[in-house]
Amino acid sequence: MPAKQQVTQVPITDSLRIIPLGGQEEVGRNMTVFEYGTDILLLDMGVQFPEEDMLGIDYIIPNIEYLRGKERNIRAVIFSHGHLDHIGAAPILLEKLGNPLIIGRPLTLALIKNRQEDSKKGTAKRLKTITIKNVNERFKFGKFSVSFFPVDHSIMDAVGVVISTPHGTVIHPGDWTFEKDPVGRRNVEYSHLARLPRPTILMLESLGSTSVHERVPERTMYRNLEHIINAAPGRVIIGTFSSQIERIKHVLEYAQSIGKKVALDGYSMKLNVETAKKLGYIKMKKDALIGIERIRDYPDRQLIVICTGAQGESNAVLSRIINGNHRFVHITKSDTIIFSSSVIPGNERTIQRLKDNMYRLSDNVIHSDIMDIHSSGHSTADDMVAVLKQIRPDYFLPVYANHYFLKEAEKLAVKEGFAKQNIFVLDNGSILEFVKGSPRLQPMKVPTDYVFVDGLGIGDISHVVLRDRQTLAGDGMVVIIVTVDRKTGDIVGDPDIISRGFVHMKTSKKLIDDTKKKVKLLLKDADPRSQANDNYIGNKVRDAVGQFLFSKTNRRPMILPVVIDV
Amino acid sequence: MPAKQQVTQVPITDSLRIIPLGGQEEVGRNMTVFEYGTDILLLDMGVQFPEEDMLGIDYIIPNIEYLRGKERNIRAVIFSHGHLDHIGAAPILLEKLGNPLIIGRPLTLALIKNRQEDSKKGTAKRLKTITIKNVNERFKFGKFSVSFFPVDHSIMDAVGVVISTPHGTVIHPGDWTFEKDPVGRRNVEYSHLARLPRPTILMLESLGSTSVHERVPERTMYRNLEHIINAAPGRVIIGTFSSQIERIKHVLEYAQSIGKKVALDGYSMKLNVETAKKLGYIKMKKDALIGIERIRDYPDRQLIVICTGAQGESNAVLSRIINGNHRFVHITKSDTIIFSSSVIPGNERTIQRLKDNMYRLSDNVIHSDIMDIHSSGHSTADDMVAVLKQIRPDYFLPVYANHYFLKEAEKLAVKEGFAKQNIFVLDNGSILEFVKGSPRLQPMKVPTDYVFVDGLGIGDISHVVLRDRQTLAGDGMVVIIVTVDRKTGDIVGDPDIISRGFVHMKTSKKLIDDTKKKVKLLLKDADPRSQANDNYIGNKVRDAVGQFLFSKTNRRPMILPVVIDV
Repeated sequence: MPAKQQVTQVPITDSLRIIPLGGQEEVGRNMTVFEYGTDILLLDMGVQFPEEDMLGIDYIIPNIEYLRGKERNIRAVIFSHGHLDHIGAAPILLEKLGNPLIIGRPLTLALIKNRQEDSKKGTAKRLKTITIKNVNERFKFGKFSVSFFPVDHSIMDAVGVVISTPHGTVIHPGDWTFEKDPVGRRNVEYSHLARLPRPTILMLESLGSTSVHERVPERTMYRNLEHIINAAPGRVIIGTFSSQIERIKHVLEYAQSIGKKVALDGYSMKLNVETAKKLGYIKMKKDALIGIERIRDYPDRQLIVICTGAQGESNAVLSRIINGNHRFVHITKSDTIIFSSSVIPGNERTIQRLKDNMYRLSDNVIHSDIMDIHSSGHSTADDMVAVLKQIRPDYFLPVYANHYFLKEAEKLAVKEGFAKQNIFVLDNGSILEFVKGSPRLQPMKVPTDYVFVDGLGIGDISHVVLRDRQTLAGDGMVVIIVTVDRKTGDIVGDPDIISRGFVHMKTSKKLIDDTKKKVKLLLKDADPRSQANDNYIGNKVRDAVGQFLFSKTNRRPMILPVVIDV
Repeated sequence: MPAKQQVTQVPITDSLRIIPLGGQEEVGRNMTVFEYGTDILLLDMGVQFPEEDMLGIDYIIPNIEYLRGKERNIRAVIFSHGHLDHIGAAPILLEKLGNPLIIGRPLTLALIKNRQEDSKKGTAKRLKTITIKNVNERFKFGKFSVSFFPVDHSIMDAVGVVISTPHGTVIHPGDWTFEKDPVGRRNVEYSHLARLPRPTILMLESLGSTSVHERVPERTMYRNLEHIINAAPGRVIIGTFSSQIERIKHVLEYAQSIGKKVALDGYSMKLNVETAKKLGYIKMKKDALIGIERIRDYPDRQLIVICTGAQGESNAVLSRIINGNHRFVHITKSDTIIFSSSVIPGNERTIQRLKDNMYRLSDNVIHSDIMDIHSSGHSTADDMVAVLKQIRPDYFLPVYANHYFLKEAEKLAVKEGFAKQNIFVLDNGSILEFVKGSPRLQPMKVPTDYVFVDGLGIGDISHVVLRDRQTLAGDGMVVIIVTVDRKTGDIVGDPDIISRGFVHMKTSKKLIDDTKKKVKLLLKDADPRSQANDNYIGNKVRDAVGQFLFSKTNRRPMILPVVIDV
């Protein structure tokens, strides 16, 4: 990649600026900045999960360097829905930005408060919130007018947002899908958005731009799930994401309707259901949900367990059940295991292993390859075309996906007759500016370097630390301790060697002994005067031992020389 | 997983034993043992690529402990085709097994010889080989009769094998697909295999047991590739596996027919094409292939580059081209980039990043989501049913896939009317014994623990070393050096601290200083007599520093105390 021109200070102008921020690969997914003179609106504050080479990293949060010094301009943070890639960074970023006002639908705000409490107990009540009670409410934040519209997604209370300014009207559905035959709610229509003040700027999640297969309709998925639950010879164990609250609600209410008991397991699963119940979004009688420790009190045929861990995370509930480490659930041949979620890219092999182990325990394992029991919360290429036709925007900004999906979305729109000069494929950090309805892509970008969160550390993991982790992961390390007489420069006694992750020390005694000899010989022949310099000795040992071990093993462990003066 | 009963010695009996060996997840893919009294036949010697948690491992080879002491019984090693998961371990295992006779088709043997030379220069000529010149030849190895049949796969010279004994006839197509409309060769038929002496035992690759989507026919793929090559406004750059020799041949010969020049890049790509050319399997005129350094001598429209690296491997040719690090190829907007290969599970995100970067450089990027330019070398569920119907075996052993695929293959066969008691889903290490046509699954298994290859080390990486690499990868490490007065037990001077992959030391000075203070305080208060014991001090420091750093960072680096007596 060519080096980017980066700016943190762009002069304030009478214009509408749109700046996608966030993780890195999926443009704008985790955060978007809207700036109009001295008014700033933010959309979402999510986390991104690390790539394969970001070892040990918990997650990545949006880089907010551009907002530094502008905290007072932030009129509100709008949250589109309650998934972690849209709310996960809220506890960190809200604090950093001086606790601005936040606005969202009831479930979204409740989930943000949960996340805030998990991060720092007792702090949720300090959040300044506006609840969108009715999706038709309108709000004024500085010079921005804001309204909302419902969208189909896999969680209740997902909304799209309309942000109006004299320079243009932004329409952003957030995460969305197009459910042609929704269960228990009305069809979502976008055509009213075609009547908004022009020019309209559509920011559209374009993850589906190359998806040509028909989505599994939710009605099919629910019918299949209900059929399996009904026909199960014994218990039903469902592994899914705790974020699939819409689906969990459906299963819970169906179970209740046929007199089955449900036990939930997994911290986030229990918390999310509890939260949705409190808001009245899930309707359960008192005794329909039971504690997981009580499953022995009911006959198998009456039981459903819904748990987290469908990505094979080693400590999550489903893995513990399958590996025989769960306190209350032990799989038997008559259990039915349902694996109802998508596979997050990068987790394929872990999930394959989990499936293998499931099939060894149960004769009734059901996953998406076998039956349509998962319905995506995201759209297809056809859905995108349908929405473009309904909204007929003046400008089209494909977002929320890797660059190549955005380029494909552009092709799709051009094929549908959309003028190419009215489509903008942005990067994170791009500044697209509208002045009186005319767009201009700024030549510079705002900073978007990764901000890593690892344990309690935010942004303290540098690329140096990551590179070290990669070296350590690949070939381990060798510590070589040399004691040197401060006066004479002679080495004292034998060098000591400790290695981890390189070779099994117990069975590699000869290699270790040879390395010690090598070091001794190396330092014996050298000029004692120069050896008075610890750095000199250290570098010499590092080079020589590195070469020696590579010649013997073809591995390049990290070599750490320690020189002790006595 | 329950502990397996493992045996290395099973008494020799008058029976046919089938033992799948190999990697681990994909049952039997890398190696299968056939044993009949004192005669042993081996099928393939492949490598498996490491799972995500096997850090730094190059590859995994079959565990041959069962064959130890039986080397003299090995009559031959049959190689089904030249892909690495079937031949990659040959240089290591043939040597370990006393260099037994090997048999295969010309290209397969040539590729094994290449691999052998890469491993140890000058040793290929020592291999004892039999070339299957005609696929209808029959061979006798001890009490085994062996014959072959052609199969469709993505490499020339792929064969299935028939192994006949008085106790049963094994039919094993190896890796296979079912090409209904092959280009440039005849349709493969399996029905003649229904007439072999009974009982017949079909071992069938069952990777496709849940694949319900139609495979892309090779004719479609070739037509699309030809169309793109023809219509390209500039150069065409094709990234694929060097193992897709069938496809590479087709592109090469097509390019020649329309007067385009092809430059190959990537070590294995050039070697494989050279090998296939020498055998006459690829027919190219002298000047149709050019060196990659000569591409500047030709107009762009006349050029095709075929290179390795379609999985996004960071040092492979395609990545170097895309990242601007290739010596001769620099992408321009008019280049067409074709990404013609499947995605190996686990590489998804790396490939997504590679695609992003391609789309930034070129307006003509073509991959499987866009057009059918990849055709799988493996079969679908329908193909499996077709083959079962053609061969009508007495026993069915689904193999070459993860356990859950094998179980699904079993369901598939049962649905087609196959008797469940005649299907055996084996694990690696399972012993299935046939005595006069009757099968019996032995209660014990042979050893199949992973044998890791890392650099020059074979089997020297233990689970301890891997666990250490995981810890180091996750949170890095901290070395704490304490100098102790041998006589008094007092610590001398300040402790030294080195850390890598934990925190950025330069910006975490306070944490490091606090840790030093902690150590000093800890050892000051302790009883000097017990401190004379280095182990005691080490453990004490490890525990205290581990807890201290966790409380400060929520990370658990590896703590390595070093105690120096002076």
